[in-house]
Amino acid sequence: MPHVQITWVAGRSAEQKRKIVERVTQALVEEGRAKIENIHVTFNDLPATDYAEAGVLVADQKRAP
Amino acid sequence: MPHVQITWVAGRSAEQKRKIVERVTQALVEEGRAKIENIHVTFNDLPATDYAEAGVLVADQKRAP
Amino acid sequence: MPHVQITWVAGRSAEQKRKIVERVTQALVEEGRAKIENIHVTFNDLPATDYAEAGVLVADQKRAP
Amino acid sequence: MPHVQITWVAGRSAEQKRKIVERVTQALVEEGRAKIENIHVTFNDLPATDYAEAGVLVADQKRAP
Amino acid sequence: MPHVQITWVAGRSAEQKRKIVERVTQALVEEGRAKIENIHVTFNDLPATDYAEAGVLVADQKRAP
Amino acid sequence: MPHVQITWVAGRSAEQKRKIVERVTQALVEEGRAKIENIHVTFNDLPATDYAEAGVLVADQKRAP
Repeated sequence: MPHVQITWVAGRSAEQKRKIVERVTQALVEEGRAKIENIHVTFNDLPATDYAEAGVLVADQKRAP
Repeated sequence: MPHVQITWVAGRSAEQKRKIVERVTQALVEEGRAKIENIHVTFNDLPATDYAEAGVLVADQKRAP
Repeated sequence: MPHVQITWVAGRSAEQKRKIVERVTQALVEEGRAKIENIHVTFNDLPATDYAEAGVLVADQKRAP
Repeated sequence: MPHVQITWVAGRSAEQKRKIVERVTQALVEEGRAKIENIHVTFNDLPATDYAEAGVLVADQKRAP
Repeated sequence: MPHVQITWVAGRSAEQKRKIVERVTQALVEEGRAKIENIHVTFNDLPATDYAEAGVLVADQKRAP
Repeated sequence: MPHVQITWVAGRSAEQKRKIVERVTQALVEEGRAKIENIHVTFNDLPATDYAEAGVLVADQKRAP
């Protein structure tokens, strides 16, 4: 432990994910005393039709100018 | 908050998701006193080989007549 | 299917959850053609120290006047 | 209930998933007294860039000889 | 990986969970070729007011004779 | 978006969570170009009987000297 799940709309590169994993893992080790070898981080990349905020799909938010 | 995750077998259109998001968001505002701007709804669309009920994959249920 | 998970800060009554379950379930049946007997809805009630928005714990938001 | 979510890097066949579903479902019925008709199992297959262990993406682990 | 999350209504003992963990872990090793040291299993024990099936809270199901 | 869920065995203070939230949120803004106002972070604190690694409950790991 711990297990970290990051759910968002797809669009980030592997390089961006690599950096996020490093920083999130480091934060959990330094602030949460987690053992690095047990830290799992997963990304759940969703299409813009599968994430909604305030009752509106992200796909529809994009239509706004 | 809140965050709502809906996991099911893929097959619904963006229009269907749009309506579900509206109704779920409205229910949380009206019955749960959630603030609309903080409500997130996500859909996790899975292939029929990745969802099982009662020990049987949905993909295998479909084979039944 | 589907499985619906609602994660928020604790504070709603069973009666509020009952109504939300009814409306969410109905929305999935009517708009998503889900079979009612397979719809599962779960609530994940968290303490205010375990939910953060925009980098701030909900527990700390409450301190604001 | 219960709902079982299995998150891992993609690569298993439908046949492998079928067997895992059977054994997990059986374990929950026999050891956990769950009713078989209410047991849902879902697989969340992720690309190797979307799962990290110990601060390293699985995609990068594979580069090691 | 993998990460297995089991969500249900509370009521099982540590001993029951111990057995379920053993069998689920074994199934993933034998059928899914997962490495045992990377398998995480978590239980999400919910009150009966926080799990609904077919539009009805488990707490309300219990009222039925 | 995004929504970040951190699942682990309970035991960290609100102050530790506060710092983790800040660093995780910052990492997502700086490396992932997420908008800070839409970032949600939740902690899922579990008892030591509800998290297992390598087939062993954390509660049982603690028994080892």
